[in-house]
Parts: sequence; C-alpha cells; structure tokens
Amino acid sequence: MPDSTPKSRLVSAIRTKRSYLCVGLDPVPERIPAAAGTGVEGMERFCRDIVASTADHAVAFKPNLAFFEQYGSAGWAALERIVNAMPADCLVIADAKRGDIGSTATRYAEAFFNGLGAGAVTVAPYMGADSVLPFTAFTDHWTVLLALTSNPSAADFEYHGEPPLHEVVVERSQAWGSDANLMYVVGATRPGGLARVRDLAPDHFFLVPGVGAQGGNLEDVSAAGWNADCGLLVNSSRGILYASPGADYAEAARLAAASLHQGMRRILDEKNF
Amino acid sequence: MPDSTPKSRLVSAIRTKRSYLCVGLDPVPERIPAAAGTGVEGMERFCRDIVASTADHAVAFKPNLAFFEQYGSAGWAALERIVNAMPADCLVIADAKRGDIGSTATRYAEAFFNGLGAGAVTVAPYMGADSVLPFTAFTDHWTVLLALTSNPSAADFEYHGEPPLHEVVVERSQAWGSDANLMYVVGATRPGGLARVRDLAPDHFFLVPGVGAQGGNLEDVSAAGWNADCGLLVNSSRGILYASPGADYAEAARLAAASLHQGMRRILDEKNF
Repeated sequence: MPDSTPKSRLVSAIRTKRSYLCVGLDPVPERIPAAAGTGVEGMERFCRDIVASTADHAVAFKPNLAFFEQYGSAGWAALERIVNAMPADCLVIADAKRGDIGSTATRYAEAFFNGLGAGAVTVAPYMGADSVLPFTAFTDHWTVLLALTSNPSAADFEYHGEPPLHEVVVERSQAWGSDANLMYVVGATRPGGLARVRDLAPDHFFLVPGVGAQGGNLEDVSAAGWNADCGLLVNSSRGILYASPGADYAEAARLAAASLHQGMRRILDEKNF
Repeated sequence: MPDSTPKSRLVSAIRTKRSYLCVGLDPVPERIPAAAGTGVEGMERFCRDIVASTADHAVAFKPNLAFFEQYGSAGWAALERIVNAMPADCLVIADAKRGDIGSTATRYAEAFFNGLGAGAVTVAPYMGADSVLPFTAFTDHWTVLLALTSNPSAADFEYHGEPPLHEVVVERSQAWGSDANLMYVVGATRPGGLARVRDLAPDHFFLVPGVGAQGGNLEDVSAAGWNADCGLLVNSSRGILYASPGADYAEAARLAAASLHQGMRRILDEKNF
C-alpha cells in the first residue's frame, strides 16, 4: 500500500475494529499474578497472555520500556519476542519517552522502528526540534510527542509561561512532521486541557493516557478530543492488566478490554463514524 | 564509608586524579575504527579499549543508551559487560534522559542504579516532580537533570517564558534532592547561560557537554561554572573516541584525554584546588 500513511492505516483499523483502544503493557513485578510465573519469564508470559486475550478489542499495544529495562538485557530480549508476536493489525507503540540531540535521536529512532519493529515511539520535547526531527523523518512510522501529560506534577513545567509550555510544544512541533505521522500525548485527567489542545491541533491524533485508574473517563475524553478521523487512541493499562490477581487474569483482562470496547463502539455509532 | 555522599566521593576523585573529565561513550557504528571489529562485538571491544586507555585521565564515563539500544537486547548485554568492567574509581553515568510518571520512573531508577550498576543517570524534567523524585530517592546515587542543553534547538523550549524554562527547572528542582546527589546538565555552548545557572545553583555539580566538537572550550566553561568544590564534570565524547580512525585509536584517545587532563590540572592548580 504505497499510498497509505501511519494515520490512514490507524483510521482504517479503528473503522474495522470499531475500537480506539490502546492497551498499555506496564508489567509491575509485584502485581503480575502468581499464575503467570516469576521473574522475566513470568513477565513475558503475562504480557503475551494479555496481548492474546485483548487483541480483538484493541487497535494498539503500548509497552512501556521501563518495565522491561528493569530486567536489563533479558527484559529487552523478552520485549523483542513480545513485539515480534503481536498481531499485525495492532499498532505497537514503544512508550520510551526518548529525547536527545540529533545524531543520538537518530539512533533511538532506528532502535525502536528498525530494531524493535515498533510502529510508533513516544518522544519528549524538552530539547526541541533537534530531538524530534530524527523521529518524524521516519514518515512511515508514528512519532508520539509528549504535550500535556496525565500525572499530577505535569503542572510543574508544562504550564510554565504564557502561552503555557505544552501549547507552545503543540504549536511549534506541527512544523516538524505532519498529522499523518505525528501524534500528541494529551492526558485524560485534564479534559479542559485536552479540548484546548484539540483547538490547536485539529487534525492530529492524540494518545490519551489516564482513563480508569488515574481518574479520566471515556465519555469526557471522547467529547473533548474528537475530530473528523476520531483522532483518539485511548490508553488503559492497569485497569486491564490487573483486572484479576488470580489465575483468571487473562479472561478478566479480556472482559475489561471488552467493556471499554463496547463504550467505544457506542460512541463511534453516536458519531456516525 | 557511611558518611560519604555521591558528591563527597566525586570531589575526592577530582582531588586525587586532578581531573574533572567525563568521557562520553557514544559509539557511532560508521565511525568505529575497522581495527575494533564489526557489529556489536566491535562496538564492545571499541568501548572497552577506550575505557582502558582513558581511565587514568577521567573521573567518569558516560555511555549514551541510544548507541547500545540500536543493537537491541544484544547492545544492552554489551553495555552491562562494559559497565561491569569499568574501574571502581570512575563514576558511571547512564546517559538515558529518562522521564516518566512516578511509578514508572521508579522502574527506570531501579534499572539503571540496581540493574546496570550505574552511579548516575540523566533525567528529563518535562513531566515535573513526579518524574524526578523517584530518582533522587536513591540518595547514594546521582540524578543528573537536564537544564540547559548544548544542542542548537535548546532554544525552542528551554528559553520559553519569563523566567526562561531552564531557570525554572533549576530553581524548582533544588527542592527535589540535595546538592549531594542532584546534578544539572548545562551545555558548554552557552557560557552566558552556564554562568547564570551557576548563580541559581551555587553548590550543585554541573555535567557539561559540548566541549570540543560542539564548539565549547575548557577555559570558558571552567571560568563560568566553577564553584568551591570545582562543581564541574566536563564531558568529551567525539574528540576522544574518534581521535584516530586507524588501528591506533586507543592510543589516540588516550592522548586526547591526556590533553584535556593537562588543561584541567593547570586550571585546578590555578584555583588552588
């Protein structure tokens, strides 16, 4: 498909699956059910089971690198196998939040896009254009830039200045890629901020963390962030991964994902999408 | 040494070695001399040879994670071996520029401090206190926070607002650690900025990239950033690593490091340190 772009493929997947769910893979060692096993092997089995049980309900998976790097090279090797086994109809977002000067950023882009085989990577904007352009140069892959994050201390710096920093990030960075391959992280915990960023970037997709355990909800996020292409990937991690501490964790994860999927299907119907 | 801190140990190393040199390990595949070999094995040999040949002249080594992650899990495994073999009298700074929400940041801290065995890790401030405190909680390890970076596009966001963002980062983050375990990245390419950050953080160590290939020079940096504890770790990467493309790369690196060491020794003498 030479004419396809990361965006056209994502929109197509959303239409086909009637879902804009991203499942975050944040395997916290203390919360991995005993039935999955222990150590890096238990973590890998847990992630593979979650992927298999939720893939029908999701259009993307987002492994967070920290939870693999905590096992060192063995964790990276497990991540490589997990990504390799992911279904072809799901986008893989390496949640790495990398940011470094140009020549170094190119190495990170190659590590995640070519090496790991991810379709998207999250990037931190602090160091400016140098640190973002080497990612957006990969036009067949998504660059997912941090804008307004969902954590409590986002206010420390992301609201600094007038206009606030995260708005400047969104405005200025639009020149560094196109809406076909540049997405923003905009947290669900600040619906007012989400609506404001939507005004600044009407055509871009947003990756929205913070629904569920962090307090955001699907309806508010969808109302504030919707655009003509849906424009949203709503992430859930803990609410799906740890839906049950027992041996039924995969089935419980499936049901949690199915529940979010049902809500998304209803919203997509309402929007005649 | 129960009473030692990361800072007291670094000051002691600077006094003993008469050097405040940090050697950056940024192994660019295209620039690794053929004599070192190819692939991840060649990269590992190159790094080990550079470490062995420059260790007498440096108090710290700073591997940048991007150049290891570009080889995937095999690159991480090589980095683990390289770090494991580093001399005990040198600080290992994992230049990872990580930044994520609290619970995730804790995993990164564990990955680098406990897993990899680094004494320091670089951290990005964009997401605020949540993303920094899990690192500074490791009081026996350094957190090295990005403040004013050396790349051209640092001006995109680091100067946003009034006072400029990087100054707000330095002022606010001082409450998140102490000068005994919190250091700032302040680029050598902006001596005026370096002097200003020194005014804001008189007691903290600065990790200063940008001397050499990027245009900064040792004398200007030392004049602008000096404090009562020296307060500077001056990094050189390319000027040392790629001093010769030939089979004599290790000896050429040693001479390049020795030259910087000589300049530092002279400045330490002048300062009666």
